[in-house]
Amino acid sequence: MHATWYLWPMQSAQNNRKILGILGGGQLGRMLIQEAISYDQDIYVLDPDSNAPCASLATRFVQGSFKDFDSVVEFGRLVDVLTIEIEQVNIEALELLEKEGKQVYPQSSVIKLIQDKGAQKQFYFDHHIPTSRFKLIDGKQDLSQLDATWFPCFVKSRKDGYDGKGVQYIASSSELERGFDVASIVEPAVEIALEFSIIAASNGDEVKCYPLVDMEFDPQLNLVDILSAPSQLAQPIQKEALLIAEKIVKLLGIRGLLAIEFFLTRDGQILVNEMAPRTHNSGHHTIEGNITSQFEQHLRAVLGWPLGDTSTLKPAVMVNLIGEKGFEGPVLLDGLSDVLSIPGVFVHMYGKKTTKPGRKMGHVTILADNYEEAHKNAHIVKEKLRVISGYGK
Amino acid sequence: MHATWYLWPMQSAQNNRKILGILGGGQLGRMLIQEAISYDQDIYVLDPDSNAPCASLATRFVQGSFKDFDSVVEFGRLVDVLTIEIEQVNIEALELLEKEGKQVYPQSSVIKLIQDKGAQKQFYFDHHIPTSRFKLIDGKQDLSQLDATWFPCFVKSRKDGYDGKGVQYIASSSELERGFDVASIVEPAVEIALEFSIIAASNGDEVKCYPLVDMEFDPQLNLVDILSAPSQLAQPIQKEALLIAEKIVKLLGIRGLLAIEFFLTRDGQILVNEMAPRTHNSGHHTIEGNITSQFEQHLRAVLGWPLGDTSTLKPAVMVNLIGEKGFEGPVLLDGLSDVLSIPGVFVHMYGKKTTKPGRKMGHVTILADNYEEAHKNAHIVKEKLRVISGYGK
Repeated sequence: MHATWYLWPMQSAQNNRKILGILGGGQLGRMLIQEAISYDQDIYVLDPDSNAPCASLATRFVQGSFKDFDSVVEFGRLVDVLTIEIEQVNIEALELLEKEGKQVYPQSSVIKLIQDKGAQKQFYFDHHIPTSRFKLIDGKQDLSQLDATWFPCFVKSRKDGYDGKGVQYIASSSELERGFDVASIVEPAVEIALEFSIIAASNGDEVKCYPLVDMEFDPQLNLVDILSAPSQLAQPIQKEALLIAEKIVKLLGIRGLLAIEFFLTRDGQILVNEMAPRTHNSGHHTIEGNITSQFEQHLRAVLGWPLGDTSTLKPAVMVNLIGEKGFEGPVLLDGLSDVLSIPGVFVHMYGKKTTKPGRKMGHVTILADNYEEAHKNAHIVKEKLRVISGYGK
Repeated sequence: MHATWYLWPMQSAQNNRKILGILGGGQLGRMLIQEAISYDQDIYVLDPDSNAPCASLATRFVQGSFKDFDSVVEFGRLVDVLTIEIEQVNIEALELLEKEGKQVYPQSSVIKLIQDKGAQKQFYFDHHIPTSRFKLIDGKQDLSQLDATWFPCFVKSRKDGYDGKGVQYIASSSELERGFDVASIVEPAVEIALEFSIIAASNGDEVKCYPLVDMEFDPQLNLVDILSAPSQLAQPIQKEALLIAEKIVKLLGIRGLLAIEFFLTRDGQILVNEMAPRTHNSGHHTIEGNITSQFEQHLRAVLGWPLGDTSTLKPAVMVNLIGEKGFEGPVLLDGLSDVLSIPGVFVHMYGKKTTKPGRKMGHVTILADNYEEAHKNAHIVKEKLRVISGYGK
């Protein structure tokens, strides 16, 4: 085995250590930086918001849009390896950077596919990956062609959807007006017994998956609300889903992390819902609950290091900390002392300067010796810990 | 139970959130900052070296000496709570700040006691805490008064000793010249079977101890070399040591962390060797190996939050990464890929810009399912991972 060398020299223009660039400066980038401190890894960040969660922690913070061609090209040329923490980035810029020889992970082709929910669906279909029935349409005018077997259905705009935005539920053919004026996909609503996710990683040589995570959504906010790992699903279902995840990673040839969200239908089918080529909300519990956190794994994957062990240390539940209704302004965290007195509670604030109703302000992971205790404590955390503001109503 | 409120408002002169100040900007401060990111906790750091490991990560870095009265007073007035990551700080400044109402944790009285190895020994003696026999002397001229029962012995200067500096071994009365010209303590050399440590914490209300850690020293570098937790010592010995640790914490009334180093003599006695009122090299494994890391615990203790659960998640071994002999200059880490391919290996680089022989450059924690595997992997890490420099001989 040949030795590998990494340079950590003095700060200078000619230094030989690799600089990692991140498109996006939100909480996912922030938690990556937090882990990267252990490797003294330089990280540059591009984000339009000078108050972004990464701004004060990045080795270098560049204010600019990750959707803008010139900003991304210019930023990409400053770094050795370029990665993302949000997928709504300028693809043409990434393609140019790749042509110039830059290491872009995940690759632009993968991000491009995933940015387009229609292309994503077609990819599943073409490769016999189980997913719900779908139809690509140019806009809501095409909805009238659908027969009764399609209702009730979901219409999703092919691009720029995020956290439930760009998704409409249409109960019957009398509601077609709720569709979008842009290219969309239509999927009949399936009866869902459960949602779960798998986070997979590849460094180009090897693929590793984290154990399955059961997800409970808050239907009002359309955000993951309580997440629980390891999954309580039957082992054969888990095995089948893990095989699907590995298959997708290999087909895409992605280098980096891939989060895949699944449905388990009431009649026992596994369906792939959608995927994200990055660290993911459903992997936050891995910071404390698993040997290697998803952020460390992402770092290893994009820098070409060996992937870390994904085993579970303890059962974990994760709850998002969402800006409380009725409060907007500077952040006030109510109940911290109460929740820190519960053993195994880990609070993560994202460093956002202001709260507003429904905004993701942080998360809390709860470790316990068993599933029941973790859930019991998670419900206490949800009740006690609130992100409010002194300037609330 | 009354609600507790913490403010995370916008950056502004009138903001209400607490600022934590640290005297010293080395690796212990750096790892504290890394954990504090999860609470979006502002941290100011005072250190004379503009390249200190904390310099680029602190919310505000102030260049100045923590040994200088004016620098410490001026710095202390900028923060709400003041703590340390090194005990050689200006005590008079801390005393003034306390008089002005500043929260200084650990308290100046505790740091003052621990700065003086003579006073520390006297404290153990006065409170019937088992420690080796000792004598306080004014300088090496007093060594001639010692009878044969004192040899072989160790002479330690009462102040400013660190990592083995200020300590001399004197085999017989023919070597008295090796003593110091300053106030010192003399201790007969005891036959040591084992060294171990306990890290205790108090937030003013409660005291919690981490499980014991077995320490193996490198006799050449006089630094902890391999550290292993939980301890393999017999349970009655562990229980006795934990009672001693709790007793010391309560007697001192310390708020913050207290690391206590013990000897187990060949004839089965437990002796307190020395203590440090801060996070400690022998607690680094807690980052991954325990529910709550020592850095999070320190933060909780000095900010008055409930203390975290100290339970062990998995057996852990920690090895220091010491600058390799024969290399001096910008840091080159050799063998990273080799060690990251071992499951459960966690590398921590301290962000020091240059290496030199014997300098603490980082540490590696190795988790495994059992003691033997952790040790086996630790020895592989020690062999493969080397901090060298491209400019070495």
